[in-house]
Amino acid sequence: MSEDLVGNVLVGQSGGPTAVINASLAGVISEALNHPDIEEIYGALNGVLGILNEDLIDLAAESQQTIRGLKFTPGAALGTCRYKLKKQADFDRVLEVFKAHNIRYFFYAGGNDSQDTADKISKLAQAQGYALRVIGIPKTIDNDLVITDHTPGYGSVIKYISTTIREIACDNAAMGQHDLVQIVEVMGRNAGWIAAGAALAKRRDHPHDPPHLIYLPEVAFSTEKFVADIQRVLKREKFCLIVVGEGLVDADGNYIAAADATDAFGHAQLGGAADYLQSLVEQNLPGIKCRTVKLGMAQRCAAHAGSKTDADEAFLAGQWAVKSAIRGETDKMVTLQRTETDHYAVETGLAPLSEIANGVKKLPREWINEDGVSMNHQFIRYATPLIQGETQVAFDHGLPAFAKLDKVAIDKQLPAYET
Amino acid sequence: MSEDLVGNVLVGQSGGPTAVINASLAGVISEALNHPDIEEIYGALNGVLGILNEDLIDLAAESQQTIRGLKFTPGAALGTCRYKLKKQADFDRVLEVFKAHNIRYFFYAGGNDSQDTADKISKLAQAQGYALRVIGIPKTIDNDLVITDHTPGYGSVIKYISTTIREIACDNAAMGQHDLVQIVEVMGRNAGWIAAGAALAKRRDHPHDPPHLIYLPEVAFSTEKFVADIQRVLKREKFCLIVVGEGLVDADGNYIAAADATDAFGHAQLGGAADYLQSLVEQNLPGIKCRTVKLGMAQRCAAHAGSKTDADEAFLAGQWAVKSAIRGETDKMVTLQRTETDHYAVETGLAPLSEIANGVKKLPREWINEDGVSMNHQFIRYATPLIQGETQVAFDHGLPAFAKLDKVAIDKQLPAYET
Repeated sequence: MSEDLVGNVLVGQSGGPTAVINASLAGVISEALNHPDIEEIYGALNGVLGILNEDLIDLAAESQQTIRGLKFTPGAALGTCRYKLKKQADFDRVLEVFKAHNIRYFFYAGGNDSQDTADKISKLAQAQGYALRVIGIPKTIDNDLVITDHTPGYGSVIKYISTTIREIACDNAAMGQHDLVQIVEVMGRNAGWIAAGAALAKRRDHPHDPPHLIYLPEVAFSTEKFVADIQRVLKREKFCLIVVGEGLVDADGNYIAAADATDAFGHAQLGGAADYLQSLVEQNLPGIKCRTVKLGMAQRCAAHAGSKTDADEAFLAGQWAVKSAIRGETDKMVTLQRTETDHYAVETGLAPLSEIANGVKKLPREWINEDGVSMNHQFIRYATPLIQGETQVAFDHGLPAFAKLDKVAIDKQLPAYET
Repeated sequence: MSEDLVGNVLVGQSGGPTAVINASLAGVISEALNHPDIEEIYGALNGVLGILNEDLIDLAAESQQTIRGLKFTPGAALGTCRYKLKKQADFDRVLEVFKAHNIRYFFYAGGNDSQDTADKISKLAQAQGYALRVIGIPKTIDNDLVITDHTPGYGSVIKYISTTIREIACDNAAMGQHDLVQIVEVMGRNAGWIAAGAALAKRRDHPHDPPHLIYLPEVAFSTEKFVADIQRVLKREKFCLIVVGEGLVDADGNYIAAADATDAFGHAQLGGAADYLQSLVEQNLPGIKCRTVKLGMAQRCAAHAGSKTDADEAFLAGQWAVKSAIRGETDKMVTLQRTETDHYAVETGLAPLSEIANGVKKLPREWINEDGVSMNHQFIRYATPLIQGETQVAFDHGLPAFAKLDKVAIDKQLPAYET
C-alpha cells in the first residue's frame, strides 16, 4: 500500500456521450463519499475544457436523488468535449488548476483519445513531482478499447438496436406481399462491433430471423456481392433486413460514404452508408422497394432501452476507479474482465493508460461467418450477457424524467486562460 | 335490438402496422369468446388479399398466452396489405368467401382507405340480402381519421418520439461547445400530427427545452425563415434540435422532398426531408454542424416504448367492435370520445364508415403557435393524456419476446381466385 494522499477529487467526462457514462459518474461520487482521504468531490464541466477554464462544480452538493437518477440518465451530465490538449501550455494549465484546487485524484471517463489525455496529464504531474493519482474509466459505445473485455456503453447500444430490429422485423413481416429491402444504419467508425451486435435480434435456433445481412467495416464491401446477397435472401424471405455500420470500406480500404469533414482528432466524419446502399438497390434491383432508418445519435443515448448489466458495470467501473486510486494506483484505466466460469460474471481490473491509448480492439474476423454478413456463435456468446436486464428509468407524465445537475460552481482561483 | 345473427367472425388488419393494432386484434378475440352467437373466430391473412385468396386461420386455436402477448406485439400479426379492391369481381369474391365460411361478423382494423373498403363490402352484402355486420376499428399512427378524438397507434408513436427527443437532448446538451443542428425526421404524409407530438418532450414550464423547432406540413416551408429560425435558436441555445415531418410542403403546396413513386392508392412516396434540410443548413450556415436521425419504420412499431393508454384503448376498440356488432350495429367504425371531465377519460362510440372513409382530420391551425414552429397549450392538453403509462413488454434473454400466431389454416371451400 502506498502512502495516504489527502485532497480533492476531480472527475470529468469526455468524447461522445453514452447511455451509461453518467452511471460511472454516479459510481465515482458515491464511492468517493466513503473515503476520509477525499475531502471535496469536484466535477469538470466539458472535460478538459472545463479544467482549462477552471469551470469546476461541487458534486457533493448535489442531492442524493440526483445522483441516483444519474445511473439511468443518458448524455454526459458534466458536459463533454472533443477538445485535444495540444500545446505544452495547455498541460501546464491543467496542472496549475489541479494545484489551485488541491486535486489529488483525477478520474476521466472516455475512449482511447481521452485515456491518452489522462496519461499525459499524469506523466506531467510526475515529472513536476506533484502527487496525483489518475485513473481512467472506460466509456465508448464503439467497444474498441483494448485489454478490457468490453466497454460500458456498448451493451446498451446493442440492446437498443437489437430491440429496434426485432420490432422492425414484426412490422416488415406483416407487409408480407412486397419484396422489401429495409436498411438500418448504425454507428461504428472503425470497427463493426455495433453493427455486429444487431445479430442478437435473431432468436436462438431461428437462423432466418432478421437481420438477414450485416455489413461490417471488417469485410471489404463489394456491390456485386451486396446485390447477390439480397437476391439470395429475397428468394427465401418476404423481406430483407440489412444492418450497416457507418464505417463501411471498399477493397482498397476507402470509406464507402465518406464526407470531406474531419473532427478535431483528424477522424473522417461519416454518414450516408444507408443512403448509399439504397441507391445501389435502386440501380441494381429495379422494382424492389427500399426503405432506410438512420438511428444516428438516438442510438448512443437510448437509456429507456438500455441494459441493466451495462448500467451496473458502468457504476462499478466508477467505484473501482476511486477504490484503486485510494489504494495508490495511478496511470491506469479500469478494465472489466470476464471470469472463467459457466455463468457470466465480471471482475474489475486495471491496465496501463498508455496501452489503452495506443490500441484499437478490432472485431475478431473469426467471429464473422464465412458469408461475411452474419455473426457466429462465438460473437453471440460474447455479446448476449451484455444486454441482460432492463433499466429502471423513472417516468414522469409519460416520459423519462432524467437527472440534471444543479452545478454549484467552485470559485475560480486563477486568471482566465485563453484556449 | 336487432335479431340474433348466428355465425362466424372474420377479423383483418390493413394498411401500415402500428405498435398497437395487435392489441385491437386481442380485444376482438377475447370479446368474441363471450358471445354464444359467435361460433368460430377466423382471421384473414394480409387483409382483403387473404379474403380473396381464402387464406383464413383459426384464431380460437391460438393459446391464451399468445393472445395476451399480442397486446404489446408490434406489426400486424395477421399480416396486412395495401391492396385496393378494384373491380366488381373482387367484391363479389369477398362475399362468396364470406358465404362459404358463414362469416356474419366482419371486423377490419385500418385507416380511412381500409374503412372505405369495409363500407363497400357491407353495402354489397346488403344489396345481395346477405346478413352481415361490419364494424371498422380505427388504426393509424397518422391520427388523421375524422370524428374519433384520436386513433389507436398515435399515442405510442408520439411517446416513442418524445422519449427519443428527450434522450437526444441530453446527448446534444452534453456536447456543449459546438453549434450543432440536429434534425430528426418523423412520419406524417399529409398532416403534422406526429411531428407535433414531439412537442411533448418539452418539460412543463421549460420553454427552452428541445425540440426547438418543429416543421409541419400545415405551415408552408420557407428557406429564409428556416435559416432565421435556426439563427434565432443558436443565439440562445447551445444546439438546435429540429423535428420535421416527412410531408413538408412549400408555399405552392408541393412536397419539399418528393420522390416520383406513388403507392397503390396513388399517394406520393416521401422521404428525405431531413437530408434536404441538412443540405440547406450546409449551404446557408457555413461552419454549423448538422446531424440527422431518420426514425423511419422504427417509429411505428416501437412497442417497447409504447403508451399503455394507447394499448388499452386499442384493446377496448376491438372489444367494442364486437359488442356493437352483437347489438346489431353495422357499417360503423368504433370511435374514441373524450369525456367532458377534468380528468382524461374516453368513451367508445360509433360513426358511419362512409363518413370516416371520406374525411381527413387536419391538425388544427390554431394549435400551432404564431411562430409556425411550436405547439401551444391546446395541443399539449390534447396529446399529453395519450402517452400516459408504460407498456409491459415481456423480455426474454434481454430482448422483447413478441407473440407469434400459430396460424392454423381453415380448409378452403372455393376454387382459387386470380387477383
